[in-house]
Amino acid sequence: MNNDQYYMKLALDLAASAKGKTNPNPVVGAVIVKDGVIAGTGIHRKAGEPHAEVHAFKMAGDYAKNATLYVTLEPCSHYGKTPPCANLVKESGVRRVVVATQDPNPEVAGRGISILRDAGIEVEVGVLEKEAQRLNERFIHNMITNRPFVISKYATTLDGKLATHTGHSKWITGEESRHSVHLLRDEVDAILIGIGTVLADNPSLTTRLPEGGGKNPIRIILDSELRVPLDANVVQVSDAKTVIVTQENASVDKIADLSEKGIEFIIVPKTDAGLDLRILMEELYKKGITDVLLEGGSEVNASFLRAGLIDKYLIYVAPKLLGGRNSLTPFSGINVDTMDEAMDVSISSVDMSGEDICIIAYPK
Amino acid sequence: MNNDQYYMKLALDLAASAKGKTNPNPVVGAVIVKDGVIAGTGIHRKAGEPHAEVHAFKMAGDYAKNATLYVTLEPCSHYGKTPPCANLVKESGVRRVVVATQDPNPEVAGRGISILRDAGIEVEVGVLEKEAQRLNERFIHNMITNRPFVISKYATTLDGKLATHTGHSKWITGEESRHSVHLLRDEVDAILIGIGTVLADNPSLTTRLPEGGGKNPIRIILDSELRVPLDANVVQVSDAKTVIVTQENASVDKIADLSEKGIEFIIVPKTDAGLDLRILMEELYKKGITDVLLEGGSEVNASFLRAGLIDKYLIYVAPKLLGGRNSLTPFSGINVDTMDEAMDVSISSVDMSGEDICIIAYPK
Repeated sequence: MNNDQYYMKLALDLAASAKGKTNPNPVVGAVIVKDGVIAGTGIHRKAGEPHAEVHAFKMAGDYAKNATLYVTLEPCSHYGKTPPCANLVKESGVRRVVVATQDPNPEVAGRGISILRDAGIEVEVGVLEKEAQRLNERFIHNMITNRPFVISKYATTLDGKLATHTGHSKWITGEESRHSVHLLRDEVDAILIGIGTVLADNPSLTTRLPEGGGKNPIRIILDSELRVPLDANVVQVSDAKTVIVTQENASVDKIADLSEKGIEFIIVPKTDAGLDLRILMEELYKKGITDVLLEGGSEVNASFLRAGLIDKYLIYVAPKLLGGRNSLTPFSGINVDTMDEAMDVSISSVDMSGEDICIIAYPK
Repeated sequence: MNNDQYYMKLALDLAASAKGKTNPNPVVGAVIVKDGVIAGTGIHRKAGEPHAEVHAFKMAGDYAKNATLYVTLEPCSHYGKTPPCANLVKESGVRRVVVATQDPNPEVAGRGISILRDAGIEVEVGVLEKEAQRLNERFIHNMITNRPFVISKYATTLDGKLATHTGHSKWITGEESRHSVHLLRDEVDAILIGIGTVLADNPSLTTRLPEGGGKNPIRIILDSELRVPLDANVVQVSDAKTVIVTQENASVDKIADLSEKGIEFIIVPKTDAGLDLRILMEELYKKGITDVLLEGGSEVNASFLRAGLIDKYLIYVAPKLLGGRNSLTPFSGINVDTMDEAMDVSISSVDMSGEDICIIAYPK
C-alpha cells in the first residue's frame, strides 16, 4: 500500500462510517494531507448537509495551501442543495487532488475533474477505485438505472432450506447473524416481503439494535389480493411506515380500512408472473426509495430473481440440516428443466458470522 | 510452533501422503530426531507392510540411540501382520517418544505407551492431537463403532438445489470441484448411491484422474425393488465391482441375471424407513469396507441423515441460483414441522474450490 492508497483508505473508512445515513446521496470521505501530516478530514453526514470536502477544508484552514486532497468520489460540479465542491477545491490552494472514482451522476460525470484540471491542479483518478465503487454500489446503481438497489437477504440450513413445509423458520441462524440483519435494516430505505411471509410469520420488520435506536425502513408488502389482516403487525406496529403494493381490482373497502390505519398503497399492473416488479421499482425510486432489502419468501424472491431485479445477495448458511421433501427453499417459482437455466452469480466474499457462514454475491 | 510441534507436523504430513492407501489400517508417519537433525523418517505404506516406525528406525540405524521418536499414532502393542512396534521402540535406544494420539484400537489403547514408559522411556502424548485424530478420523470411527465412516458429498447451487425437477444436474460445480471428487473416490473403499440416481444419471462411478490411474471404489447401489437395468453403466462398466443392496423378496430371476454380470448382493431387512441402513453398514464393515462416499440422491441422503449414519459432510456450493418449486435439494425425506427438528452440525472449514465454495462439516 503506497501513500496515496493509505490516505484514500482512510477517506474510504470515513465515508463508510456514514453508510445508510446519506441516502439518496452517496457516502463520501475526504482527507487533506500537507507534508505528511493530516491537515483535514471530513464526511458527508446526510443529504442537505455540507459535502465531505467542505468539512475537510474548514478543518484544514491555511494548511490546504499546496496540500493534497484525497476524496472518495469526484467533487461535484453542479448546484444541488449546496454549491459545487469543485469550485471550493479550485479556490482552496491545494496542489493535487486524488479521486477514487468518478461521480456517475450524469450532472457531474467528469465535469468536476475537468474544472480542477482546467485550474492547473494535478488530478489523479482511480486510487482504490474498486473499493470506492463497492462502497457506493447503491448510489451508482441508482444513477445508472433510476431504480432502487435491491439486496436479497436470506438464511438457509446447510441443505438449502429456508423454512419447514409449515413455513416455520425460527431460528435458522444464530444471534450474530440476526444482529447483522438489524444493522442492515438500519441502513436501507425499505424492506420488501410478500403477503405469504406476513401470513406465516406476522413479522413487525422493525430495526432492533441491542443499544436501541436505529432507523425503521419503510415496510413494503406485495399483496395483490389484499389478504393482509387488519391486526397484522405490519399494520398495527406503527413504528415504521407501511406501503402495500396491489393491483387495480383490489377491494376498495379494504383499501379504505387500511388507509385509516395510515397504510399507503401503490397500484401496479398484474402480469402473468404476478405484480409488475419493474414498474414497482420505478415507482419506488420516484418516491425516493434508493435501496430495498428483499426478505422473502421464496415465491417473491423467485419473482425478483427471474425479473433480473436483484442487485446483491446476502446469504446466511447455518450449521444445520433439515431435510423434508416439502421444506421451503429461498427461491422457488417456476420449474426449470436443465441446470443451464441457472443464473450465474459471482461470489464476492465468504466469511463466518458466529457459527453461520455469510456469503456475499452479485449477479454476473 | 515449538520443536515438538514442528517435527510432529512433519510426521503428520508424511502420514497424510498415504491417505486412502492403508485401509483398513490408519495412516501413520514417524520421524526420528537426533541433536536437531532428522535421522529417520517412515510411513506406513499399506496394510500388511511394515509400520512407519520400522522404516524410520531402519533409516536411522545407530542414530536412534538417545534420539527422539515422533510418531502420529501410539506404537502398537499387539501381534498383527507385523510384530509390536512398542517392542521395537523399546529396544531402539531412543530416549524420548512423542505421540500425537493414543491408538483407539481396543487391542492397543494405551498398552503401547505403557510398554515404553515401563522401559524407562520418556513419553509425551497429545502433541497436535486434534490434527492427528482428524487425519485418522476414518480409522478412529471404525474402531469405536465397527461401521464404515460415511462421507456425505453433495453439490448445490447457492439456493440449495441439487438438481432441477427433472433430475438434471450436469454440471453444478466447476472443474476444480469435480476433480476433487475424483481424488476422494481414489481414497475411499466404496461409493453408495440410490437406484433413483442410477435411473436418472446412469453414472459409471469410476475414478477419473487427469493423469489416469486411481483406485475404483466398490459401487454400492440401494435398490429394494431391483429396478436396475441390465444395461446400466454400474452393471456394464466392469472397471469397478458393484454390490446391490436389496431385500429378501427381490426377484430371484433378476438376481440371477445380474449375478452373471459379476454383480454381488447384500440382502437386508426392509423397515418403514426403507432398507435397514444400520444393518447394511455393519455388513459392509464385516466385508472390509472402512469408508463409504455417499453420493445421493436426496432421498437416500435423507435416510442416512435421519438414521444418524453420516459422519462427515463435504459440500460444494456453486455460484448459481436455480429456483424452481420442485427442484431437488440434497436432503428430502420426511417433512419436519419446526426448525427445532433440524440436525446440528459443526462447520470445520470453508474454502474456495475454483469458483465454488467447499464446506466441510461434522455432526455435532
